[in-house]
Amino acid sequence: MNLWLTRLKEPVPAGLETPAELARFELSRAFPDVQVELAEQSAMGEGYRIDPLPGGSIRITGGSTGVLYGAYRLILDRFCGETAAAVESAPKYALRMIDCWDNPDGTIERGYAGRSLFFRDGKLSWDPLRIRELGRLLASAGLNVLCINNVNVHFPAQLLLEDDLPALSALAEAFRPFGVRLMVSVDFSQPMRSGIPTADPLDPAVREWWKQTAGRVWAEIPDLAGFLVKADSEGRPGPFTYGRNHADGANMLAEAVAPYGGTVVWRCFVYNCRQDWRDTKTDRPKAAWENYAFLDGEFAANVILQVKHGPFDFQVREPLSPLLLGMKKTKLAMELQLAQEYTGHQIDLYTMIPMWKELYEELPADSIMSLAAVSNLGDDANYTGHPLAAVNLYTYGLLAWDPGTDPEEAVARWCRLTYGFAPAQEKALTSLLLSSRRIYEKYTAPLGIGWMVNPHDHYGPNPSGYEYDLWGTYHKADRNAVGIDRTEAGTGYLAQYPEEIAKKYRDPNTCPDLYLLFYHRLSYTFRMRDGRTLIQRIYDDHFEGLEETRAMAGALTGLPFPEPDAGVIRERMEKQLYNAREWCDIINTFFHRLSGIPDERGRTIYD
Amino acid sequence: MNLWLTRLKEPVPAGLETPAELARFELSRAFPDVQVELAEQSAMGEGYRIDPLPGGSIRITGGSTGVLYGAYRLILDRFCGETAAAVESAPKYALRMIDCWDNPDGTIERGYAGRSLFFRDGKLSWDPLRIRELGRLLASAGLNVLCINNVNVHFPAQLLLEDDLPALSALAEAFRPFGVRLMVSVDFSQPMRSGIPTADPLDPAVREWWKQTAGRVWAEIPDLAGFLVKADSEGRPGPFTYGRNHADGANMLAEAVAPYGGTVVWRCFVYNCRQDWRDTKTDRPKAAWENYAFLDGEFAANVILQVKHGPFDFQVREPLSPLLLGMKKTKLAMELQLAQEYTGHQIDLYTMIPMWKELYEELPADSIMSLAAVSNLGDDANYTGHPLAAVNLYTYGLLAWDPGTDPEEAVARWCRLTYGFAPAQEKALTSLLLSSRRIYEKYTAPLGIGWMVNPHDHYGPNPSGYEYDLWGTYHKADRNAVGIDRTEAGTGYLAQYPEEIAKKYRDPNTCPDLYLLFYHRLSYTFRMRDGRTLIQRIYDDHFEGLEETRAMAGALTGLPFPEPDAGVIRERMEKQLYNAREWCDIINTFFHRLSGIPDERGRTIYD
Repeated sequence: MNLWLTRLKEPVPAGLETPAELARFELSRAFPDVQVELAEQSAMGEGYRIDPLPGGSIRITGGSTGVLYGAYRLILDRFCGETAAAVESAPKYALRMIDCWDNPDGTIERGYAGRSLFFRDGKLSWDPLRIRELGRLLASAGLNVLCINNVNVHFPAQLLLEDDLPALSALAEAFRPFGVRLMVSVDFSQPMRSGIPTADPLDPAVREWWKQTAGRVWAEIPDLAGFLVKADSEGRPGPFTYGRNHADGANMLAEAVAPYGGTVVWRCFVYNCRQDWRDTKTDRPKAAWENYAFLDGEFAANVILQVKHGPFDFQVREPLSPLLLGMKKTKLAMELQLAQEYTGHQIDLYTMIPMWKELYEELPADSIMSLAAVSNLGDDANYTGHPLAAVNLYTYGLLAWDPGTDPEEAVARWCRLTYGFAPAQEKALTSLLLSSRRIYEKYTAPLGIGWMVNPHDHYGPNPSGYEYDLWGTYHKADRNAVGIDRTEAGTGYLAQYPEEIAKKYRDPNTCPDLYLLFYHRLSYTFRMRDGRTLIQRIYDDHFEGLEETRAMAGALTGLPFPEPDAGVIRERMEKQLYNAREWCDIINTFFHRLSGIPDERGRTIYD
Repeated sequence: MNLWLTRLKEPVPAGLETPAELARFELSRAFPDVQVELAEQSAMGEGYRIDPLPGGSIRITGGSTGVLYGAYRLILDRFCGETAAAVESAPKYALRMIDCWDNPDGTIERGYAGRSLFFRDGKLSWDPLRIRELGRLLASAGLNVLCINNVNVHFPAQLLLEDDLPALSALAEAFRPFGVRLMVSVDFSQPMRSGIPTADPLDPAVREWWKQTAGRVWAEIPDLAGFLVKADSEGRPGPFTYGRNHADGANMLAEAVAPYGGTVVWRCFVYNCRQDWRDTKTDRPKAAWENYAFLDGEFAANVILQVKHGPFDFQVREPLSPLLLGMKKTKLAMELQLAQEYTGHQIDLYTMIPMWKELYEELPADSIMSLAAVSNLGDDANYTGHPLAAVNLYTYGLLAWDPGTDPEEAVARWCRLTYGFAPAQEKALTSLLLSSRRIYEKYTAPLGIGWMVNPHDHYGPNPSGYEYDLWGTYHKADRNAVGIDRTEAGTGYLAQYPEEIAKKYRDPNTCPDLYLLFYHRLSYTFRMRDGRTLIQRIYDDHFEGLEETRAMAGALTGLPFPEPDAGVIRERMEKQLYNAREWCDIINTFFHRLSGIPDERGRTIYD
């Protein structure tokens, strides 16, 4: 099984050393009867040009990895039945990253597709065949950086820079023909493992330790992409311990890796995770901006700040993080999450590209210089747990190459490559996948409020599960109203945006419906623009979401998926139906108990 | 450290073989100058008589264990400063049990005092010194049966009847001088480990397997007290799998152990733990009665049904289980829980004997023939985690010996033995311990409603944590009212009681306040007998509970506890103060958000 590459029947053999060699192998097997000429032009880097030549042969011109991307483009276009017109392409972003949250013991934080492909029993350990299969998947989707370990770096993950460095180097080598470079999550306090009494980024011994370490690491892996860092977040060590700011921390590492062309990717997921629920002054969505915006311009040239797409944490509906708009003098990456932590655990269907496109409506593509996505991969036979979750990995790759990617075309292309259905069936599946996010949104937390989820595992409804907890994620629903006022009259979060964005959300009477409860505290009898009350809209969405899930299940049953996909899809759809019913009924009951307002249409709400 | 036996300075030596030998050792060290004569009369069993003799010597007459109980009685009376008048005593119940929920890996289910004293790394493993210390504690409190493994019998606990039987026998031998007999929790499906394809209690091969097994076990441990069984409960195997009832299951085991004088203790904690929260017909408190009452008279003579004291699961306030009153032709044990699962995790102070005495107000002592209590023990240096939690172990022993025990005297005796404070301090500590349960009750779930606790770990507030879950524990609070009507007009639970009890609770206008929300669904404006509304009573109780906790903390600070107790008490009291504030504020906020009714006295309730 090789997901959207099912028609590449022959496994990639061992022993190929460069992307060009791999490209030749793939082309020779895909089109044994077509002559394809590779012309390497190193200045083109990852870009390529495909030219049909007289006589039916084809030339792919590109940089050392560009020829490989061109080869996959040609192969997949032809698999899709597209004729070979001349085409030229280069990626928008130089770093198109997959961040794995894999732990040395083989577990994956927020992993829903089995265990780690890279780690077992505390050590790096992999199946070379699967690594080549994975490399092929990544390259064919245009992805070029793989951070293989969890950003929460717990022992013995530190050994990747110590005793396990030779193994890490071997893994980097395995990915090299695919144009995939490794990145490593590092422990900011790691110098203290070498007897240095501090991890203060301004301490000379600490700086020297990181320089030495970078030297050792890049000597083994000259093309290592860099270090990924989660600092001062959810218990992780960081510069705050020493009274330093995050520019101090990031720049110290940047200096160490700069001689080798390394990058420091510094995550901006910093907030008070010990908030008192009684405290109404603190508003967690404001945290990233408050911790970073004032440092704009202070970061070294090889530092990228990696900012989650929304101000909370990968909820179904969040506005674009204001930090992505507010640091013009800093290199930024936007972080997405393929792992369906809050979006159905790769049980419920949830195709993400419609959501990503919404983000780009407010984010000019030039605001950022990289995309990153938390991996949805594991060692399940199908890599992503749910066979249809692979669409998120593939379309993420297309988006990272070209943010202008059309969602419908991208999803249809994935369907065609993966299943090769007849046109009506392909259309049905495409449409179903494109609608799946909105359906999931309808039956879960209403209108941008988020967080009504079971704590810890984040699957299934729990309307007040986080209400009195330390995480800063409150809805404050009472018998009259629900939500937090985040305008300037409330917590002031909205003031972090440029006015052209802020003005769209400020007035509840003009704020887009789906963001209403993110930005406003509203009475249940608030009259929405379509004439419905807020409470009626909540009921309607939930009943509709459940009905649409049932319809989706019916439609899926009618599609000719091959085994084993058919069985897995059926079994997961059963679970999604159960989940959707729980969500629908529990959310409706929760608000009905509070508001006392019946459903206008008399549908069953349980007491 | 030996808790209430601090004045027995010398450890019990190895090598003592009988209770009489142990009694002589203890008496010789406690009163080197007094001649105490032991006169064994086997017909007296566990009973004893203490007679002062002319010339200052003393005679203790009793059965083989009775002389030991007499010796501890004499020693502890004298330590308490009581003069030696003639006294005669015998235990009310023949089985005075401690049920440990220890797992072979050394963890303890619902354990809050460290790890197991009996198991490590999958095997029986113990420190002989600590076993003798524990035996001394149990014997001095009059306790005589110790079930050492969790009623949830997961592999490899089954090995206790297989490869680990010799080790179990050695442990039984270690406890023998203390008059403590072991009991073992067994896996109802254990015959299937020997290749028998069923555990059907009516299957001849199954019956034969248990007979053979009992023969093997009792050959090694002739005084084993019996088997404890949790069947068909929370995923455990049992007779229901085979279409048999619990009399079939229990009697089959009873037949196997009868030749050796063994007892089968069969737990009645059977209910639907996969309930749909939408289902208002099922009411979990009715379950034990429904599963067992119709079997009254069907159980063999050596079967004891062990019934939790309340119909739910060890909540702070539950009525007496109706099953304890409804099986006149069946031997019953009442199960208490020293482990503070729902009652503060041995962090919050919670002295239980006032609660136990309330149970006896409705339970004639002759209704049951045994008491059992889930252990609060672990390998912490002080055995019970919180030094003051030891009062529950000691007073449980007094109650199991004599249900007429006076709570205040029992607690005062424990204080005097443990700390030997001056009279005013002893009185303060006694009073504080006696009040601790009511204080805890005040700041937690109101008026008998229970369950507003964090799921799984059961510490800290979570008003709706179980509201939409599968466990059958719902309060259904809405904007107008809270609670479940369990009268005949509601779920009918009340009909399981004799009328003389039912009539006390039926009418909300006469139902005792503290049970109001267990039995009734009431509006927040319901007017209680003292003139307060229900909602005001909820607010008042919570503010008072928090204030009283603060007062308790202050009072504790003034008492001259020795170290290490003082430090542990201080640290746990800090945590209790935090917990009490969380409970107070969260419960008040929860009900204020629902009801919209302000506190009449204007105290702070957070929005």
